[in-house]
Amino acid sequence: MRPTFIRRPPGLQFAGVDVRQLADRAGRTPFFAYDRSAIDARIRKLRGLLPSGIHLHYSIKANPMPAVVHFLAARVDGFDVASAQEMALALDAGITPTTIGFAGPGKSHDDLRRAIASGVNVHVESETQLRLVTALGWELGMRPSVAIRVNPDFQVGQSGMRMGGGATPFGVDVDQVPALLRELSTREIALAGFHIFWGSQCLHAATVIEAQRQSVDLIFRLAEDLTQPLQFVNLGGGFGIPYFPGETPLDVKAVCDAMHDWLPGLRERQPGATPILELGRYLVGEAGIYVCRVIDHKVSRGKTFVITDGGLHHHLAASGNFGQILRRNYPVVIGNRPDSVTSERCSVVGCLCTPLDRLADDVELPVAHIGDLVVVKQSGAYGRSASPHQFLSHPEPAEMLV
Amino acid sequence: MRPTFIRRPPGLQFAGVDVRQLADRAGRTPFFAYDRSAIDARIRKLRGLLPSGIHLHYSIKANPMPAVVHFLAARVDGFDVASAQEMALALDAGITPTTIGFAGPGKSHDDLRRAIASGVNVHVESETQLRLVTALGWELGMRPSVAIRVNPDFQVGQSGMRMGGGATPFGVDVDQVPALLRELSTREIALAGFHIFWGSQCLHAATVIEAQRQSVDLIFRLAEDLTQPLQFVNLGGGFGIPYFPGETPLDVKAVCDAMHDWLPGLRERQPGATPILELGRYLVGEAGIYVCRVIDHKVSRGKTFVITDGGLHHHLAASGNFGQILRRNYPVVIGNRPDSVTSERCSVVGCLCTPLDRLADDVELPVAHIGDLVVVKQSGAYGRSASPHQFLSHPEPAEMLV
Repeated sequence: MRPTFIRRPPGLQFAGVDVRQLADRAGRTPFFAYDRSAIDARIRKLRGLLPSGIHLHYSIKANPMPAVVHFLAARVDGFDVASAQEMALALDAGITPTTIGFAGPGKSHDDLRRAIASGVNVHVESETQLRLVTALGWELGMRPSVAIRVNPDFQVGQSGMRMGGGATPFGVDVDQVPALLRELSTREIALAGFHIFWGSQCLHAATVIEAQRQSVDLIFRLAEDLTQPLQFVNLGGGFGIPYFPGETPLDVKAVCDAMHDWLPGLRERQPGATPILELGRYLVGEAGIYVCRVIDHKVSRGKTFVITDGGLHHHLAASGNFGQILRRNYPVVIGNRPDSVTSERCSVVGCLCTPLDRLADDVELPVAHIGDLVVVKQSGAYGRSASPHQFLSHPEPAEMLV
Repeated sequence: MRPTFIRRPPGLQFAGVDVRQLADRAGRTPFFAYDRSAIDARIRKLRGLLPSGIHLHYSIKANPMPAVVHFLAARVDGFDVASAQEMALALDAGITPTTIGFAGPGKSHDDLRRAIASGVNVHVESETQLRLVTALGWELGMRPSVAIRVNPDFQVGQSGMRMGGGATPFGVDVDQVPALLRELSTREIALAGFHIFWGSQCLHAATVIEAQRQSVDLIFRLAEDLTQPLQFVNLGGGFGIPYFPGETPLDVKAVCDAMHDWLPGLRERQPGATPILELGRYLVGEAGIYVCRVIDHKVSRGKTFVITDGGLHHHLAASGNFGQILRRNYPVVIGNRPDSVTSERCSVVGCLCTPLDRLADDVELPVAHIGDLVVVKQSGAYGRSASPHQFLSHPEPAEMLV
């Protein structure tokens, strides 16, 4: 007699695989899974819309899983890194050092030494960093490739997280740039580029368009003091993804179309300068899920709690405790019964002994049973790496690129 | 000629050691340091105030550094653990298994199996956990020691973080306890104790006193259904420590004095029940510092930023991003020039590329130079273990018990 395989009712498909099968493949819950085809599709679509000649960089901090970094190495034109370890990851992935930009307000002596020795672009963010870079260049007998990260003198509204404009520890104020350029010229170092970072997680095309236009204008102003041509201009990123009800995706086509307004001018005035767009969350954020298992279901004073083996120690942002002022729910589904008709109003919580550990508050979900899989979507960026794993000493989450 | 040692002007003393010497001993910055004599003094003082017979437990989640756990093993009467790994730490420290309580709303099958095999007290928090515990007891051929964590039917005001009263995933609602007791009796398992957790980080003696009084009342009500005497009653902890200007230390003497109001009644009605106080933050929080080094000092649009090699990846709570609604500064000093007369208004930030990474906002501090040591006080609890170390892939902080 031939064995009979009983088909289960279909569960949530992720990267073409049933989420229960993914859990078995991971060998445990909780886990993060990232969809390589979704990342690839996102990049292809964006490349199709971007004017030719605009380079696309990946900000490793969004998701530093080595497999993701290696996958992206073949698909983007460069990496942006925020620490020496991220730089090492980028180099291990085989990308050309000169296409790596190292930014960060607090680069240590060791960070800078490693960056110069590796031949990456150092985005200096202060006079101190510039002095250290030039001194280390002499010490190592290597000419450092230096860009200046500029704290812009404009602020655009609506950006999820502003990092430019106003008083900030990031970059060099516009009015301090000329002094840095003089310092560079006395050291016989040519400036490779400018890096303008104006904000992140922005869903409003008009804001991104305005920020890019103003960034290019700013670069023109700053370049007036230059005696040598720029090799690149990094216009930041800022492309957001929708997390919460009512949010709509960024109109990337509108953003890309508007690049034609400033691109000819940039090409004319800085013909050797490659414009760079640096994106992290936008490339990988929607391509990831966090999956944990229901281990209890209880009612306390009329409220239903679905208790999982996951929590904020793996996914701090989804718990609403990572910079959010107002806690809102990430999209959550019951992965093995996505189409269940019986639903209930409940809160999904993690396994930690703290009221902060909530994955979804007061949501309508299919009635969850013990053993069911809770899937938190939009978890490809700032999830695993941005969470306090050691809090309460529970096991680490698994991670896979599917 | 004999060598001459030039004495440096004194720096901040921590555990009797200059903080610069501690940095050299750690071999790097940033680091956490914990003062064993301060922990010891805190426990001795508390023991001196507590009525005799009240047991003192340490909640490992506050600071799971193995050296701290080992140090405390010889000084407290038991440990409270919130995961199997914390339980393993407690057992490794050589404390008697029956003095370990394992609480947590999301204990997995594996957690419970390990707990029963280890002979610790399982504080069951749901019907599901109770069923699993009894089934595993049969499977392992061991009678589990079971306590019930009760979600109290009272709420006390002013507690920093309420975890009892109202609808919560923690513990079993009071009205569901009788059903659990019936379930236990059919399994021929005696209830070892009750665990009432009403809140944490409370600085108001009257609130703690009221919570303990109500907890004892609740235990009396719950015990009416019992046929066998209790072995312990865990009255929770909740003792807070001051973090912010204007906060005053908890009047522990008043709290301990008030215990005499309910202790005789408890002894009369449950003569075999040891009252347990479980404290984490209160025992270790004030005995710890986080030390990072100034690596840059810059002015942006009139505001001064002191940039360090530390940040929220090591100390999320100090950055104001761990459950705080309103960001307030932890106490911060410049460790190597505590008595400097020249001061400046500044913000102390970490090395991460995010505006969330602030260690002190708009404070008056001695003018900091590159190489100076920034010391964040009150960092002995929920610091290193409750922070997202991997965020941006910077090095981990060192840690030492001095």
